[in-house]
Amino acid sequence: MTLKLNEKYIRPFVDEKELASIQSEISAAHKVLLDGSGEGNDFLGWVDLPKNYDKEEFARIKVAAEKIKKSCDVFVVIGIGGSYLGSRAVIEFLNSPLYNTLKKDTPDVYFAGCNISPASLKELLQICEGRDVCINVISKSGTTTEPAIAFRVFRALLEKKYGVDGARERIFVTTDKARGTLKQFSDEAGYETFVVPDNVGGRFSVLTAVGLLPIAVSGVDIDALMKGAADASDAYKATSSIEESDCMKYVAYRNLMYRQGKATEVLVSYESYATMLNEWWKQLYGESEGKDKKGLFPASVIFSTDLHSLGQFIQDGKRNLFETVISVKSREVDFPIPYDEANVDGLNFLAGVELDEVNKTAMKGTILAHIDGGTPNMLLELEDRSAYSMGYLLYFFEFACGVSGYVLGVNPFNQPGVEAYKKNMFALLGKPGYEAQKAELEARLK
Amino acid sequence: MTLKLNEKYIRPFVDEKELASIQSEISAAHKVLLDGSGEGNDFLGWVDLPKNYDKEEFARIKVAAEKIKKSCDVFVVIGIGGSYLGSRAVIEFLNSPLYNTLKKDTPDVYFAGCNISPASLKELLQICEGRDVCINVISKSGTTTEPAIAFRVFRALLEKKYGVDGARERIFVTTDKARGTLKQFSDEAGYETFVVPDNVGGRFSVLTAVGLLPIAVSGVDIDALMKGAADASDAYKATSSIEESDCMKYVAYRNLMYRQGKATEVLVSYESYATMLNEWWKQLYGESEGKDKKGLFPASVIFSTDLHSLGQFIQDGKRNLFETVISVKSREVDFPIPYDEANVDGLNFLAGVELDEVNKTAMKGTILAHIDGGTPNMLLELEDRSAYSMGYLLYFFEFACGVSGYVLGVNPFNQPGVEAYKKNMFALLGKPGYEAQKAELEARLK
Repeated sequence: MTLKLNEKYIRPFVDEKELASIQSEISAAHKVLLDGSGEGNDFLGWVDLPKNYDKEEFARIKVAAEKIKKSCDVFVVIGIGGSYLGSRAVIEFLNSPLYNTLKKDTPDVYFAGCNISPASLKELLQICEGRDVCINVISKSGTTTEPAIAFRVFRALLEKKYGVDGARERIFVTTDKARGTLKQFSDEAGYETFVVPDNVGGRFSVLTAVGLLPIAVSGVDIDALMKGAADASDAYKATSSIEESDCMKYVAYRNLMYRQGKATEVLVSYESYATMLNEWWKQLYGESEGKDKKGLFPASVIFSTDLHSLGQFIQDGKRNLFETVISVKSREVDFPIPYDEANVDGLNFLAGVELDEVNKTAMKGTILAHIDGGTPNMLLELEDRSAYSMGYLLYFFEFACGVSGYVLGVNPFNQPGVEAYKKNMFALLGKPGYEAQKAELEARLK
Repeated sequence: MTLKLNEKYIRPFVDEKELASIQSEISAAHKVLLDGSGEGNDFLGWVDLPKNYDKEEFARIKVAAEKIKKSCDVFVVIGIGGSYLGSRAVIEFLNSPLYNTLKKDTPDVYFAGCNISPASLKELLQICEGRDVCINVISKSGTTTEPAIAFRVFRALLEKKYGVDGARERIFVTTDKARGTLKQFSDEAGYETFVVPDNVGGRFSVLTAVGLLPIAVSGVDIDALMKGAADASDAYKATSSIEESDCMKYVAYRNLMYRQGKATEVLVSYESYATMLNEWWKQLYGESEGKDKKGLFPASVIFSTDLHSLGQFIQDGKRNLFETVISVKSREVDFPIPYDEANVDGLNFLAGVELDEVNKTAMKGTILAHIDGGTPNMLLELEDRSAYSMGYLLYFFEFACGVSGYVLGVNPFNQPGVEAYKKNMFALLGKPGYEAQKAELEARLK
């Protein structure tokens, strides 16, 4: 089984009747998602994407990835939010969080345009010095401030270094299929373009060109990734039964937790390669459910390191949270603990034991300790650290998110709150058309 | 002013009477902290540390740092929790989160022994291949599982590479001043040792040898760091008045937020170099306050990137949180936005404007948007990105934490919950002495 939800450590925290009674809500939400009758139904393209994706474009992505691998040392991906979190999560999970530092046959992959930091941008330019660079700008409209600024800088750099003609071969644009200034400009300039589909929101876009091109450049098998997602799609669309679907089980428990006042969900992993997967998940759930004054607050930790940080709180602090633990079942790296003559630490009883086994034993011990402390735990067991399993896991979280949002009673596919800061920022920066708000906002800042 | 708390964006959320009424509690807690009459008073060594530190050892730290700089390419710091978070936070804040990637005159600094991941350990060994290595193991007892395993591995590596005599010059040990197996072993082996003071807990230890040696190796001026902390200590010990002390103001507001049911504090920064500072802060507050079923849950974000992730939730999700924003006032890096002939993004109205100004405008716009959404904001304005200011900020958070814990009614200086997972882990791993629990725990996992 590629992915299994072990409910053993949360079941005791839930009343049998509660669990039974939420089934009808989940069935209704599952139906609304699949028949497209709910709010946000313009953005359901991700549901069938793992099978209905554009095969011609998919082939082009693979060709472009090979070209990029051959022609650069540094691949700069320019995008914010859903335009970078998915690919970064997959690259780090399947390769390494130290992917850029380790020796490899593929280019370094750096992310830009996801902040407005002069320090970050300057440092990235330093890293690019004397090295061959390709870029992939990812923006539906082309006007989002953060990636737009980074694109200005890197396009100028490439044109200076390689000339306009040379730069053309090194700039890849993922944007709207027809509309938008970036699409028009790219066509005129002759850049190869890929599509951000109209019916797929940013946080659900990891399996579109948005995620796939950078992922492929890092050497990940994107066919296997899609196959995993497709198999998950078959499994999770087939039934809304909590008993039969681990995906719906996840929806059930997390909503029941929320109703109990456990308003923070902590996503837990025992490997630092999951750090960015946690961040991807936080966007997916935070943006989908955090609205109308509702929603579980998504937080994350990497154990065992954070057992020496947030561990104390989770064990014994305010009882307003629960944990969802991701564990990769197979052992990916052999590393037996060495015997030590001196035995300063008294750990010779572990000599020869695999570090992975100790890590998993720490996980088991922690789960038991935390439930004893009153923090419910769900355990998501992933078969292995393969592209196939990763695709399966990504789809699991996406599908659960869609259903869960409807159970919560929100539109899981919009993000109206993201506009608020942008409007204020534009007004304060004096963008034409925002003159009326400028003075008012400035007065409030005095 | 090195550090200023701007209360403008939280004051409207607090009743004038509430603010006045918490003054007496804060004065009492401030007194208890300073006269050492409260719970956990064995661990108050950090309060006067910035002035009373061991000057002889401080000089030795600087000598050792110079020796390390000259003799290695990679400096591996082995420790978990408070033994690595402080130094990593300072190194990244004052140098860069990409410190190891950027060209520099100082060694790379990697952290090990803060997890049980075979993948992490194997990758770090790959990074060390063909390069000169020094290590600093930081563990009071020497028996904590994570660093102990890493120390086994790296000591063996150094002894194989440089021989026992050569390795001796490359191993630096920060541990108990007299007791513990690691101290005894180090003395016998002839390693240079530094002290984890008895009266300073891990999460308050950044200004002891625990933090100072790795920080100094990265090129940071530790004299300035200590001076900043010393000046903060003078300022914050002098008065418990909310009006007069920004540190006590922070204590007041966060406790009033907690009492309103705003049970999550989100620490916000607009620069990725603050990512690990956020993590240090999460340990400091999570471990100090998260006990007896109480405490604010500490979370963190880096904007503007996370405005496209958790931003939606903070703007409009469940109203159970507030934000504390850290902003560096001075501009550290010049980076005017380039003019672009094509103006694809319509941003030419910003051409020539400093990126840092845009970033700070995004911050101002966001604060106004979030308070309009019902999320109170405190703004901590730090003068600059210097070692002096950093020392000031670290002490600000430490002193506030001590007082805040007493206001909350907990012992801010213990961490009983951290033991729970360790006991279970040892029992499940079959450590001698834990036989009784093993069978019982295994039965619960079936």
